[in-house]
Amino acid sequence: MLILTTGGTIDKIYFDAKSEYEIGEPTITHIFQEVGATLPHEIISLMRKDSLEINDEDRALIRKNCVECQASQILITHGTDTMCETAAALQDIQGKTIVLTGALAPARFKITDAVFNVGTAIGAAQSKPPGVYIAMNGQIFEAGTVRKNREAGKFERI
Amino acid sequence: MLILTTGGTIDKIYFDAKSEYEIGEPTITHIFQEVGATLPHEIISLMRKDSLEINDEDRALIRKNCVECQASQILITHGTDTMCETAAALQDIQGKTIVLTGALAPARFKITDAVFNVGTAIGAAQSKPPGVYIAMNGQIFEAGTVRKNREAGKFERI
Amino acid sequence: MLILTTGGTIDKIYFDAKSEYEIGEPTITHIFQEVGATLPHEIISLMRKDSLEINDEDRALIRKNCVECQASQILITHGTDTMCETAAALQDIQGKTIVLTGALAPARFKITDAVFNVGTAIGAAQSKPPGVYIAMNGQIFEAGTVRKNREAGKFERI
Amino acid sequence: MLILTTGGTIDKIYFDAKSEYEIGEPTITHIFQEVGATLPHEIISLMRKDSLEINDEDRALIRKNCVECQASQILITHGTDTMCETAAALQDIQGKTIVLTGALAPARFKITDAVFNVGTAIGAAQSKPPGVYIAMNGQIFEAGTVRKNREAGKFERI
Repeated sequence: MLILTTGGTIDKIYFDAKSEYEIGEPTITHIFQEVGATLPHEIISLMRKDSLEINDEDRALIRKNCVECQASQILITHGTDTMCETAAALQDIQGKTIVLTGALAPARFKITDAVFNVGTAIGAAQSKPPGVYIAMNGQIFEAGTVRKNREAGKFERI
Repeated sequence: MLILTTGGTIDKIYFDAKSEYEIGEPTITHIFQEVGATLPHEIISLMRKDSLEINDEDRALIRKNCVECQASQILITHGTDTMCETAAALQDIQGKTIVLTGALAPARFKITDAVFNVGTAIGAAQSKPPGVYIAMNGQIFEAGTVRKNREAGKFERI
Repeated sequence: MLILTTGGTIDKIYFDAKSEYEIGEPTITHIFQEVGATLPHEIISLMRKDSLEINDEDRALIRKNCVECQASQILITHGTDTMCETAAALQDIQGKTIVLTGALAPARFKITDAVFNVGTAIGAAQSKPPGVYIAMNGQIFEAGTVRKNREAGKFERI
Repeated sequence: MLILTTGGTIDKIYFDAKSEYEIGEPTITHIFQEVGATLPHEIISLMRKDSLEINDEDRALIRKNCVECQASQILITHGTDTMCETAAALQDIQGKTIVLTGALAPARFKITDAVFNVGTAIGAAQSKPPGVYIAMNGQIFEAGTVRKNREAGKFERI
């Protein structure tokens, strides 16, 4: 499995001196160690961006990595605000199962959906037929059928 | 999705006075709340047993619940020591995707694989074709192809 | 014991929509419940400010509350950046043991000094003779003898 | 400060294969690292016992270490069931501030009083006049004036 990390809340850390969040090292490496995951995988950190800052050039880079890699199962960690847009930009890639996930609360928080969401995405990426999916709130949505409901703080079917 | 809980390390709690673990309420209810899971589901607590104590009668009860329910996606939380035996006992059920999972460290621990494993199982149960699977260590194994390696503390393909 | 809360990193929370921290409810109430503290106490939330924003008027309010309360043991939670200045502003209050503490990482983080620091301050407030103290990094400093070393991320004797 | 560890719930770990707790490495080393404690200290692990198994010989060893060390501030981590008995056995030591603490839930649990209690004890050990004290439930009790209320799960004044 290929894992592409792009930043987002899941990887956010906190610097006291500046009293603001910044995006740190991919947390997924730490998650895999802590839970004893034995799944063979490669992690590539493509960028460290809040998803509101991810632009067309970034999406082209993500797409290029998905298309050119040898893996047929791909997990992408991504900020939640534009996760659906990035999923749409990958939607016509053939022959690969691509699952995007992220978190509404940073993995470094005591209460976070990060570990659960990565688990859900890992499970789906090994199980779904080729296509592009979003794994959030314990559900597997097909790209193009889902949006983030900001007020409710959850993803839902369109 | 139907969720059957049977006990095991994932649900273990600790009573100070007796200095030993006992199996408590299904932790999956708490996990779902904490991560904001919106997946429609029903939870049935069938038993609260260490998996070394699960016998043929218990397995018959688990099987009966899988066969007679209306759900086509079933998640079973189970102790790890005999998870593979229970999976084998369900293997010939037709038309349902059944995923077993559990944990090597209790969900109440700071460091635990419980939340991740439940996530993986939830992802697989919504994605795999009908069959019986075990979701542990970030992998989805087909029933009959997997064993617990006690010394290494992980599940592996036979 | 009287507990005055003023904000600071210890009480910081995170709002996804705005991608920035804000200061929430005093976390000390939650800490006391979680650890089973039985110490009789009253909590007054005076303000919710980053300590860089605490001004002379705020310090006058904190001082007024210390002087006019009936308690002889007072704990103040406070941002770390100007904790030493606030301690200095209280230094000549007679007949009361006043201990300031806070945290370098929010109490809502998995890894935080918040719970430990509140414990240290609670221990000192019940034990020290009248005076003004800062409890940080497991040490009890007298007001006027301590500064925050921002680069090292710790408090140290001047 | 001298820190003597004797075992107890605070240091309990869990071995899956045996489905029972055992007492592990002193957790206080880990706590100090995680919270950034800068207090100069030495840790001696005297024994790893459930406090119901601590006998007169063990108490003589603890006492000998308290009497013969050069430190004037001593922290002892101890199981809660006989913490009061050990405190009583040290009560006539002169010129030293000795504080005992422990935990009702293991430090490895998500919800635990371990970190808070160690903080309280550290604060008291640096602040109290010579004597023997127990720091539990956010309170500092003098040896001989306190008992564990097993049913209520807390320490209380006799």
